[in-house]
Amino acid sequence: MSRPHGSFTHRLLGCLAACLLCLTSLAHAEAPMAQTQVPGYYRMMVGQFEVTALFDGALQLDTKRLINLRQSEIKKMLARSYSGTEKMQTAVNAYLINTGQHLVLVDAGGGSLYGAQLGHVLANMKAAGVDPDQVDTIVLTHMHGDHIAGLIDSDNDAVFSNATVFVEENESSYWLSEKNEAASPAAWKRIFDAAKKTAAPYIKNGTWKTFSVGSPIVPGISTIPARGHTPGHTIVTVESNGQRLLIIGDLVHNHAVQFTLPHVAFDFDVNPKQAVETRRAVLKVLAKSKELAAGSHLPFPGMGHVRAEGANSYTWVPIEFSPLK
Amino acid sequence: MSRPHGSFTHRLLGCLAACLLCLTSLAHAEAPMAQTQVPGYYRMMVGQFEVTALFDGALQLDTKRLINLRQSEIKKMLARSYSGTEKMQTAVNAYLINTGQHLVLVDAGGGSLYGAQLGHVLANMKAAGVDPDQVDTIVLTHMHGDHIAGLIDSDNDAVFSNATVFVEENESSYWLSEKNEAASPAAWKRIFDAAKKTAAPYIKNGTWKTFSVGSPIVPGISTIPARGHTPGHTIVTVESNGQRLLIIGDLVHNHAVQFTLPHVAFDFDVNPKQAVETRRAVLKVLAKSKELAAGSHLPFPGMGHVRAEGANSYTWVPIEFSPLK
Repeated sequence: MSRPHGSFTHRLLGCLAACLLCLTSLAHAEAPMAQTQVPGYYRMMVGQFEVTALFDGALQLDTKRLINLRQSEIKKMLARSYSGTEKMQTAVNAYLINTGQHLVLVDAGGGSLYGAQLGHVLANMKAAGVDPDQVDTIVLTHMHGDHIAGLIDSDNDAVFSNATVFVEENESSYWLSEKNEAASPAAWKRIFDAAKKTAAPYIKNGTWKTFSVGSPIVPGISTIPARGHTPGHTIVTVESNGQRLLIIGDLVHNHAVQFTLPHVAFDFDVNPKQAVETRRAVLKVLAKSKELAAGSHLPFPGMGHVRAEGANSYTWVPIEFSPLK
Repeated sequence: MSRPHGSFTHRLLGCLAACLLCLTSLAHAEAPMAQTQVPGYYRMMVGQFEVTALFDGALQLDTKRLINLRQSEIKKMLARSYSGTEKMQTAVNAYLINTGQHLVLVDAGGGSLYGAQLGHVLANMKAAGVDPDQVDTIVLTHMHGDHIAGLIDSDNDAVFSNATVFVEENESSYWLSEKNEAASPAAWKRIFDAAKKTAAPYIKNGTWKTFSVGSPIVPGISTIPARGHTPGHTIVTVESNGQRLLIIGDLVHNHAVQFTLPHVAFDFDVNPKQAVETRRAVLKVLAKSKELAAGSHLPFPGMGHVRAEGANSYTWVPIEFSPLK
């Protein structure tokens, strides 16, 4: 006898089926949130050199640090790029270049100087498969804490024990001078302190080397002066097989404002007027040469190209995430 | 007796020192090239939902696939965005959403249909700490092979054995129709083939479910019709705690051309005229609402915002790489 609906057995079976579905659903409901971000590194080739961008973290900076333009205008510019208008998210990037002969690190992030916001270069380098002891050459774009404090650990010892640190000679002497510190705004004391503390173990080891403006560092890695943000602010060039990457350091602090309006400066520029002139000159060259650039504070990985938009105005065109070729 | 220069001992010592330096240099020269890219996933929160973008790979498409504009103009647009002018790099992205109750995959990449260029969703999902068996819900924006073929393995079996696949009803019936296949251009045969082959194991399991246009899928995940590219092309919305992400599928195939000129269409659009109308309408809404969007073919992770640039013209503003908040 067939009773398609309503029998106790049928209802029981239906109930069991529903229960199984429910349990399956509960099992799925338990898929935990991962709560982890992808490791902060990104690779691309420049000729035969392997370049790895390393994410040190991101600072949330007051928009008032941008000067030469009314705050209301700055906030408009940030809003149109969907950047925070209360605080500017400001990435801190470092770059590792394997030339085949040398493993070269350009800048080292903020170490323990900025709390948990920064200090992730080392972890991301390791995630990228590189041990800090393998780095033989370090070049600094300049000596602000978010570029150099990652050279030392929390005991103020050298992190990169097998590396020589190359610093432009004016940059080194400027930030290691007690006289300059005394003559500078009080807010800069922490920059001078970080510079002294960071340089100390390398000076002691004999691995703190100054170079004169524009000097080559190792084959394929050279420098171009880009003064203003600091007295020895330096562009590091990476050149292999006719391709060139320019690591422009702090030439641009905020992508949403300073490409469109290069006259906007940063309140920690040692010489804001010179910084503006340098920014204008270099952006003009990059827009014309169409060469690859990498900026310490451009959204990670901070690599891309500059497009001219009329006279004295530019757009940042980030690279497209690509498999490693 | 001190002879500072020229003695045999001195020269020998100098020679040994040089040799040691040389050996040190050689040791560093052995730092191997890593030859690996960072895993292709990226996470961000949308309200309380954890959204993970998954990179399936990148296709190199002929620029002639963009229509309604002279090729010379298209190549100019690509060049100004530093995109390839011979072939357009076209990312393929999928999105995974953990709502806390459901683990939802939106599209599944191209599987083995496009050789090694695509088919990396599964590996990147695993790198992101998620097992395909944990996925309980799959929503398809549409049934082109680069969005669905990742649902099956090389034996044509279901990859996501615990998931129900949701497809808009017109989309499913269109691509599974022999009659439509017979009436379509020969070049589309492989799309129809992939659709049949991909749907088969899920239809057999009873886990291929059609929904009517605009239907909700699971709490927080819903759909909006966006027809033209295909007859049932669908936007998937992800909404939690007052924040909304719109996964816009193939609304835009090329970021360098179609945001600025939304009238440019794609030669595989089933109805290019309707696709243009839909693109115009949705970009207008996104520019006004300022909501977060994610596009299947925008540079990975394909997430960002739309900015209006005058009437009927837009700019894509990619999100900034950020720690997971």
